[in-house]
Amino acid sequence: MTNQRIAAILRGGEPEETVTVQGWVRTKRELKEFAFVEVNDGSAMANLQVVINADLPDFENVLKQLNTGASLEVSGVLVASPAKGQRIELKASAVQVYGDADPQTYPLQKKRHSLEFLRTIAHLRPRTNTHGAVFRVRNACSAAIHQFFQERGFLWVHTPIIAASDCEGAGEMFAVTNFDLKNIPRNDSQEVDYAKDFFGKRAYLTVSGQLEAEIMAMAFGNVYTFGPTFRAENSNTSRHLAEFWMIEPEMAFCDLQGDMDLAEAFLKYIFKYVLDHCPEDMEFFNERIDQTVLATAENIINNQFERITYTEAIALLEKADKKFEFPVNWGLDLQSEHERYLAEELFQKPTIVSDYPVGIKAFYMRLNDDEKTVRAMDILAPKLGEIIGGSQREERLDVLQKRMEAQGMNQEELWWYLDLRRYGTVPHAGFGLGFERLVQFMTGMGNIRDVIPFPRAPLSIDF
Amino acid sequence: MTNQRIAAILRGGEPEETVTVQGWVRTKRELKEFAFVEVNDGSAMANLQVVINADLPDFENVLKQLNTGASLEVSGVLVASPAKGQRIELKASAVQVYGDADPQTYPLQKKRHSLEFLRTIAHLRPRTNTHGAVFRVRNACSAAIHQFFQERGFLWVHTPIIAASDCEGAGEMFAVTNFDLKNIPRNDSQEVDYAKDFFGKRAYLTVSGQLEAEIMAMAFGNVYTFGPTFRAENSNTSRHLAEFWMIEPEMAFCDLQGDMDLAEAFLKYIFKYVLDHCPEDMEFFNERIDQTVLATAENIINNQFERITYTEAIALLEKADKKFEFPVNWGLDLQSEHERYLAEELFQKPTIVSDYPVGIKAFYMRLNDDEKTVRAMDILAPKLGEIIGGSQREERLDVLQKRMEAQGMNQEELWWYLDLRRYGTVPHAGFGLGFERLVQFMTGMGNIRDVIPFPRAPLSIDF
Repeated sequence: MTNQRIAAILRGGEPEETVTVQGWVRTKRELKEFAFVEVNDGSAMANLQVVINADLPDFENVLKQLNTGASLEVSGVLVASPAKGQRIELKASAVQVYGDADPQTYPLQKKRHSLEFLRTIAHLRPRTNTHGAVFRVRNACSAAIHQFFQERGFLWVHTPIIAASDCEGAGEMFAVTNFDLKNIPRNDSQEVDYAKDFFGKRAYLTVSGQLEAEIMAMAFGNVYTFGPTFRAENSNTSRHLAEFWMIEPEMAFCDLQGDMDLAEAFLKYIFKYVLDHCPEDMEFFNERIDQTVLATAENIINNQFERITYTEAIALLEKADKKFEFPVNWGLDLQSEHERYLAEELFQKPTIVSDYPVGIKAFYMRLNDDEKTVRAMDILAPKLGEIIGGSQREERLDVLQKRMEAQGMNQEELWWYLDLRRYGTVPHAGFGLGFERLVQFMTGMGNIRDVIPFPRAPLSIDF
Repeated sequence: MTNQRIAAILRGGEPEETVTVQGWVRTKRELKEFAFVEVNDGSAMANLQVVINADLPDFENVLKQLNTGASLEVSGVLVASPAKGQRIELKASAVQVYGDADPQTYPLQKKRHSLEFLRTIAHLRPRTNTHGAVFRVRNACSAAIHQFFQERGFLWVHTPIIAASDCEGAGEMFAVTNFDLKNIPRNDSQEVDYAKDFFGKRAYLTVSGQLEAEIMAMAFGNVYTFGPTFRAENSNTSRHLAEFWMIEPEMAFCDLQGDMDLAEAFLKYIFKYVLDHCPEDMEFFNERIDQTVLATAENIINNQFERITYTEAIALLEKADKKFEFPVNWGLDLQSEHERYLAEELFQKPTIVSDYPVGIKAFYMRLNDDEKTVRAMDILAPKLGEIIGGSQREERLDVLQKRMEAQGMNQEELWWYLDLRRYGTVPHAGFGLGFERLVQFMTGMGNIRDVIPFPRAPLSIDF
């Protein structure tokens, strides 16, 4: 079978060219002498209009089967289209129907469906305009991420999914076990006998690959992860998933300045790549979903990001002619309203806030000489809020140990992480971002469950 | 900080050029007037030789710290090297030591270490020649896979990691739960009350993304997965991991012929890409690990794969002038010895065996008209054995339902999979391959635990 994609035909097909396309019927319009069938193959938002003349053998029977959702192969000749908004159409000389779709039961009829309803048919929603565009953009975004890092000599490293401990304290974790849950073995002191489980100890789904990425950066210089991570939080919000993909670059011989430079270049690159590769899909989002997505993308691409310290941010917020719901106070974490004020109202462009108070940031972030702040940075984008979080890591063994001690962490469990500071330690830095949040921000989709094919959330595990 | 990579300097650096490099000491050789320090930064197998003259300020103190494993930054001028095997070396004008590595305790001293020992220090082994090469090849292989599919318009789709059921019956699965294992809720009939768990039903780690990839192929035509999969098998072999990455392309409007064509093109592309991008690493494997890896790669790249049916394969095996340990009999699965005989001895090139007996293959493979065989194919490679398994999928609702019934499968659980055959069904096909097996085969590494950064296996979950 051949596979001429409709995207390529719409872009470069010329009248009198013979083509064969395969796809699914979006709509059908029957006239007396002929019928118009809009065919989509997922390669583009746009359909190819197929004109079937009544003299096609078995015309009536074929047409009866060509309802929305039916699959077909059409051969014919391209002709200039008299219709508005399309350059060419396909005059069918042969039509083969592969599979029909009963209009009585096929759920995706032409009418508009709510995104909530479409979540219940996640196996069919990729066939809609909206989810077609979402998953094409999602793919372009993925491809851009790999290309960005590979061009710069970063190695893609696969950090473990099943992990032995919650090293980061990043939240509730799912347990992974091979136990028969009806019959959990106990040891002499009646505790769960994890020594008898598959891995011989408690196992969880990872919340971050950062610590292992640091291992790899200490050998290869520049690496990145791009893989699934998990949170067992009972959050039924439009911004939380139990299973999501994360990107975490880690660079040896890099300080916070270099980290910010890379993160800024990264965001500009990804947004530009997607605008270049999915212009129709992005226009669709701008028209139908959120009329600011193109402006937001242009803002990210074209502006040098503002860079301020947390301390400067607090001063600006205190001076702001605005009443905030949450108090502004040095030492407290910035709330969404503060972040949006800075990026949207004050600077009106992406803003990097750095050097946060040590008390509100993770143990591995490098302590500044003031001993009050750490070399952390968050990137806040207009409309989007916090989109990237990163830091220079604490490379000094004694300082790291003191901070772990202060937080009551188990140093024995992280013996290998401490070894990285014992042997050939170097200044290093990295950042992380949630992939679905990025796609959500990029497309303007209101609910994160609509930008991942099969969302996992509390009580939600279908498909 | 700047970041000039040693790989680029070794390739293109010219005498009299001023450079700054950062990396780790591999070895040090002290003479009276100067010292040689071999510096590696992970960008290449080869080290950059740094020459430090005794007139460098603080020479003795600096040199004392530059033991194997120490990290440093060196600035200086490139000069043509009088030494054999290297074009240029770096004459240091400034050396900054970032972190030392006590020769008394640093485990990676110059002597050779066993791969078994290195597994116990998986946080340091990426700094060895062997694992450096493995993980660079692994990255090149990953990049090649994405590039191959993206060039052909395939979408990378992220199929779920946490799954509700073992749809494929592919083996033992890990359970994922948010229960407190000390206190598992029971329902009225004293069964585990999964309704109270995070997802409201039993949840597992996925064994394959194929069925979900089929969903996406029915909207976008061509898609592929590249993600982690899991087996809770208690197998302590050199070819099994509990957590490994798989690649699973799925193509709508594609039959078994097209599937074989794509798989053959895929393997040729990946091997060629890695030979082109990691020539030194591949030569290292050929010299130190397995002296057939280059010949095997060339064989895959340069030969048109042989294609025979299972029935033909059985006839050839029965005719073979060879005593097999396992019986050869139509209906029995091919054993490793049979596969190796076909690919290594008989054809001496990659061999695709197709149309296996229905009894030994999965329910979703398309039934042939003989009703005895299915449209499955396995690719057998010399030295490697089975490296790819694929099939055309059963797209006919009634036939699929009959096969699920015959295998006692729960059709209600797979309602969405059956819907794909109800609405716009099309001929489609795909294949799968284990990523670590591919890297193992490519590099000649004997144990699969040595080609993934942090292997997960029974009782093995460190790092």
